[in-house]
Amino acid sequence: MKCRRCRADAVIELPQHRTAFCAECFLHHCRQQVRRTIEKYSMIGAGERPLMAISGGKDSLAAWDLLLDLGYDADGVYLGLGIGGYSDRSGEYARAFAHQRGVKLIELDLATDVGFTIPEAAAQRRTPCSACGLSKRHLLNTVALEHGYTVLVTGHNLDDEAAVLFGNVMRWDTEYLARQQPVLPGGDGFARRVKPLVRLGERETAAYCIIRRIDYQVEECPMAEGNRHLGYKELLNRMEERSPGTKLEFYNGFLRRMQPLLDGVSSQDKGDLGSCGRCGSPTTGELCAFCRLTDQATDPQHRSTPRGRRGRKRRNNSRRQVVGAG
Amino acid sequence: MKCRRCRADAVIELPQHRTAFCAECFLHHCRQQVRRTIEKYSMIGAGERPLMAISGGKDSLAAWDLLLDLGYDADGVYLGLGIGGYSDRSGEYARAFAHQRGVKLIELDLATDVGFTIPEAAAQRRTPCSACGLSKRHLLNTVALEHGYTVLVTGHNLDDEAAVLFGNVMRWDTEYLARQQPVLPGGDGFARRVKPLVRLGERETAAYCIIRRIDYQVEECPMAEGNRHLGYKELLNRMEERSPGTKLEFYNGFLRRMQPLLDGVSSQDKGDLGSCGRCGSPTTGELCAFCRLTDQATDPQHRSTPRGRRGRKRRNNSRRQVVGAG
Repeated sequence: MKCRRCRADAVIELPQHRTAFCAECFLHHCRQQVRRTIEKYSMIGAGERPLMAISGGKDSLAAWDLLLDLGYDADGVYLGLGIGGYSDRSGEYARAFAHQRGVKLIELDLATDVGFTIPEAAAQRRTPCSACGLSKRHLLNTVALEHGYTVLVTGHNLDDEAAVLFGNVMRWDTEYLARQQPVLPGGDGFARRVKPLVRLGERETAAYCIIRRIDYQVEECPMAEGNRHLGYKELLNRMEERSPGTKLEFYNGFLRRMQPLLDGVSSQDKGDLGSCGRCGSPTTGELCAFCRLTDQATDPQHRSTPRGRRGRKRRNNSRRQVVGAG
Repeated sequence: MKCRRCRADAVIELPQHRTAFCAECFLHHCRQQVRRTIEKYSMIGAGERPLMAISGGKDSLAAWDLLLDLGYDADGVYLGLGIGGYSDRSGEYARAFAHQRGVKLIELDLATDVGFTIPEAAAQRRTPCSACGLSKRHLLNTVALEHGYTVLVTGHNLDDEAAVLFGNVMRWDTEYLARQQPVLPGGDGFARRVKPLVRLGERETAAYCIIRRIDYQVEECPMAEGNRHLGYKELLNRMEERSPGTKLEFYNGFLRRMQPLLDGVSSQDKGDLGSCGRCGSPTTGELCAFCRLTDQATDPQHRSTPRGRRGRKRRNNSRRQVVGAG
């Protein structure tokens, strides 16, 4: 099979685009996809310095690399989740990338800076993934605002977005559906949140890292095993195999044809958001979901694991400190 | 396991409702579900005589039985599709039911009355199922109007509706999504179309027929094998097994939370419908989709099967005659 762009031998086939590329032209393709996504949705303004959320996995490192390559002065932020050796190794990949490229990585640790780990929080929540997602959304946004960044970039790829969309559709969660956009506007306590990888699948971000020789965390998170989101990904993968392009059609069709009908549905759109009585974050309740999670995860009365000491000590330490690193 | 209603031994478990019933109480449950659906959506007016679309399968025969049992003077209509022995046997089940209950069955035959069979039409369409669905929608509506029925009842069950919804969502076909309702209002060339079985799954309609000793066509249509709709059903069945109630939540959540947002989206809602230049049916084009299908299926120039004679002979016989039977 030949590269569609230069007719050299292809190294990767992309059935969803009915095409194939050599290594160089594949990198060009990834850059084009990201450049177009950023432009189409006005994700990053001229001269604006984005903050890239780094997990140490292929998507966030590929996104950081692509942003830098496209000329953006992107800094990174890594949040340690306290998931044993998995988190330790993830942090190492993040630091190694930042060191090699000489770029700034802000580091934050859930246990040190807030007082609980994801395994601890998970004991109080139905799934670790929901505690993890909530912590990331809250803390990365707070860090961005505290450091003066107006735009927070995440590495969500097409597979992620299609699987999240699938789950939201199966429950018809219109609040979440309304907010499922490649750009969530900033203001009112939020940095703008943007997802420039929504046109690239995880097979593409993995291939990108391999060609660019970016070392990344290949382990799946041990706490995510068997969760619904992974089930939806598998299901979409089977549909994609039978009918290439299914995911792109599903996700893009949603953005084009359904998203406009959801305008004004979300709490943010309706102006239903107030401020958390403790940390000041936007919330529809008196206390934001993250402060409630912190209480549950650090209050010995709610604790079902034997790690009460740190929780008690830090119970009132609700504003996490941000540790910057160069 | 005990019947939830009378504590006798249960014969059927319904995990989606977290319950189980004995035979009698299961029939009661089916009647309740259908009665409530009819009332909730104002499907059939007091004294209105409904026309029940009968395929000879479990759903339409169960629905007819339920309507009669609930006190509706429902007549039936059977459309012969010309799918060899499968159609012959389906017709026999429809006639046997009508004969046993002493109710009226109107019969119509695609080959005799219009001039083509589904296998012939399928040679000109991408899938036989789309030609079949189009023919049924068009002809059953026309028969209903010509015989003065204001409401046409179909046996679509929860599995059907959830699978159709799933397919429409994967493509985000907002036109179809907007029209996916348990009741489509009548007027402007349409009889009201109602689906009173949308709260019953196909396992329930099959059990209903078995308990009520209704003989029905158990064969799957030989032309439907491997179609997308069946693929979606399988996929939803797997999700339902893992998480009972998934289909009900998916379908009901759509009706409750998404359907209101689709108000005004369909061509009918927007008043974009004109009349077919040949048969007068509502259409957005000059010729309605069924007349175009008839032309394709009966025009020897478009024909790829060797059955041109009948097609030529009936080419201009575009108004199908309706054969009534008692």
